[in-house]
Amino acid sequence: MTATTWVNVGSDSDFSIHNLPYGVVSKSGSERYVVVRIGDFVLPLEALAFSGFFDGIDGLTSSDERSVFASGSLNAFMATGPHVWSAVRERLTRLLTEQSYRGDVEPLLAGVDSVVVLLPIEVADYVDFYSSLDHAQNVGAIFRPDSEALTPNWRHLPIGYHGRAGTIVVSGTPVTRPRGQRKSPQQEAPTFGPTRRLDIEAEVGFVVGVPTELGRSVTTADFANHVFGVVLVNDWSARDIQAWEYVPLGPFLGKSFATSISAWVVPLAALEDARVSGPVQDPAVLPYLEDNTSWSMDLELEVTLNGDVISRPPFASMYWTPGQQLAHMTVNGASLRTGDLFASGTVSGPERNQRGSLLELSWGGREPFVTRGVERTFLDDGDVVVIRATATGPDGTRIGFGEVAGEILPAPTD
Amino acid sequence: MTATTWVNVGSDSDFSIHNLPYGVVSKSGSERYVVVRIGDFVLPLEALAFSGFFDGIDGLTSSDERSVFASGSLNAFMATGPHVWSAVRERLTRLLTEQSYRGDVEPLLAGVDSVVVLLPIEVADYVDFYSSLDHAQNVGAIFRPDSEALTPNWRHLPIGYHGRAGTIVVSGTPVTRPRGQRKSPQQEAPTFGPTRRLDIEAEVGFVVGVPTELGRSVTTADFANHVFGVVLVNDWSARDIQAWEYVPLGPFLGKSFATSISAWVVPLAALEDARVSGPVQDPAVLPYLEDNTSWSMDLELEVTLNGDVISRPPFASMYWTPGQQLAHMTVNGASLRTGDLFASGTVSGPERNQRGSLLELSWGGREPFVTRGVERTFLDDGDVVVIRATATGPDGTRIGFGEVAGEILPAPTD
Repeated sequence: MTATTWVNVGSDSDFSIHNLPYGVVSKSGSERYVVVRIGDFVLPLEALAFSGFFDGIDGLTSSDERSVFASGSLNAFMATGPHVWSAVRERLTRLLTEQSYRGDVEPLLAGVDSVVVLLPIEVADYVDFYSSLDHAQNVGAIFRPDSEALTPNWRHLPIGYHGRAGTIVVSGTPVTRPRGQRKSPQQEAPTFGPTRRLDIEAEVGFVVGVPTELGRSVTTADFANHVFGVVLVNDWSARDIQAWEYVPLGPFLGKSFATSISAWVVPLAALEDARVSGPVQDPAVLPYLEDNTSWSMDLELEVTLNGDVISRPPFASMYWTPGQQLAHMTVNGASLRTGDLFASGTVSGPERNQRGSLLELSWGGREPFVTRGVERTFLDDGDVVVIRATATGPDGTRIGFGEVAGEILPAPTD
Repeated sequence: MTATTWVNVGSDSDFSIHNLPYGVVSKSGSERYVVVRIGDFVLPLEALAFSGFFDGIDGLTSSDERSVFASGSLNAFMATGPHVWSAVRERLTRLLTEQSYRGDVEPLLAGVDSVVVLLPIEVADYVDFYSSLDHAQNVGAIFRPDSEALTPNWRHLPIGYHGRAGTIVVSGTPVTRPRGQRKSPQQEAPTFGPTRRLDIEAEVGFVVGVPTELGRSVTTADFANHVFGVVLVNDWSARDIQAWEYVPLGPFLGKSFATSISAWVVPLAALEDARVSGPVQDPAVLPYLEDNTSWSMDLELEVTLNGDVISRPPFASMYWTPGQQLAHMTVNGASLRTGDLFASGTVSGPERNQRGSLLELSWGGREPFVTRGVERTFLDDGDVVVIRATATGPDGTRIGFGEVAGEILPAPTD
């Protein structure tokens, strides 16, 4: 049964009644409201709680006696766990579909254009994986042309590393071209200056709601008991800085200047119909990585540069599943915190027009790609990159993620 | 002039009137008190503020109208900046040296044995550097015997990477032996199980107080305007897990299971007399890394295993200075947050008995070292590691860091 909402939602909206993603907005700049989005509207959850619409759902009060919706980020709500997430979603669906609630609820809706969209979560730790086989093969061939493209560990574990949580920004935040050390193989010594190879990485991110104690591992089967929802990620990368710095301890300043995420956290429950069987993995994985409840998903990403589509990366092609990433990340006993974000790594498919980074689209800058009749390699100042994604919802409906967008500002000149 | 305190402080104490480090303690387990330590006592700062002893110091009230000492961690106080830090330290010195205050202040002192010591800061981002030349040369020779020990970038920039902030624990927290994938060169495929090469890294950590905006770099000269104080760090490492996972994106699960820090944050002001001229760096560094206000310091570290000293790493021998680390970390525009922690990387000197890791002390396990007449390589279950450090204070007095201690618990058997 497809529920019908009384809200006026365009048929092409990313945010139908089947999606109901969560976010945080502001009106004047100081207060912060936790909201659910439907169509072009947002609905503040604290106001609904105050009006009694969530009465009967246990777990909506924080330890400090405040409503979990009053804390200015999604974190307190995310920490409540899957039973509360499910009860709130069910209640919201009823409020937005049953005409009897319309009179009370409709006055609370605000147009999304009348609010400022903020970073929805307080990010705890940020981990970035490297889980697309096509991406890893491409990058290996470009960065390490004299070696095997895949390192020997690649098919045995989902490679990942920690990124900078403090520089995660919400979609729409401009990205200033970073400066740093760059050295080409031909140069004797590094030089300092703005990156010449500013790039994107189109990724899918998973937000942890329910934390764990130090020393406890999370199994692949427990994925949906900890992960609250999904965002889009643009892991901006300065390839020349990265290439010079990353041996032996990994990427650092080539990534840490900014990572953008979409403003709307799509709940796992909205993505049930997008689930697909996991990848074929050869050789077989170690038992702790076996994933029989795969949250592999058929998400179609779309990357636009200044309005033109330059790539359509298919998330279904990922080699490692989100459940495997979570199990691997905690198998050593590392604890999870509410607000942890782990991203898939660049999503790239086998075709050239499915590559999720400019590094790959331009093959290390050596084979420019053409958009608007112009040959392009890396990002110029003023470029605007927008990544979108959609998934199939119930009965062929469409679940959208909104967008993760950013414009490139020139490097500082001081 | 050497101030004399009316508190009964042993002459061999780490915590003389010249030190006055800050920490967080609990009495019953739920409330948290921000304290200053002197000798074997702690003094709660919120109680002093309530009694008016900090009256006249601007900036001690948070944005939410609470005292900066009432928030349960050092972060709110650390965010106030160097003028407030200095004023509070001066006031505390007076309270603890002038007899006229003794009657009011002495009743507030609590014995450190009567409280539980907690993690003093809410860690924002955690960065670990790799700034000891001797350590980098040793590790390079052990891990990459067929290559140059130092990678080409090593003398041009302080190599660093992000670690897991959520698994930073306070001294005394037991460390459970992590499990994970290990593969020796002789093995066809990796196996799963407890690490066989559990190690320590003796490091010095710097805690950021004053944050920055995204896009702004911090100069080396601005170090003391942002860094609040110094802690000891044990960056526990599982060498077999690390060796298998770390190419190409750096250490991940080999480090993320636990990082221990000392309970007492020593303010920079207590370390003025420990400052030494910076290292000779050849080749010359790029201009943004020039450091004329070096916070290189002559700290003598001491590593004990089950009570026996196994190493005395000299912090003065580090190649990269803390100011250079901070400037490098932000040169790409990455912002700082209150609570950011950056650690030096393993401190190792040129002598064998100055190496700050068991990997080096046992040369990759191939040359066991002897303690208590027993040959040792990596950590066994039940081992207790304690790292201490001291610096010279005013007039030849001694500034101590307390300790960062941890006992190894067996891996889970489920």
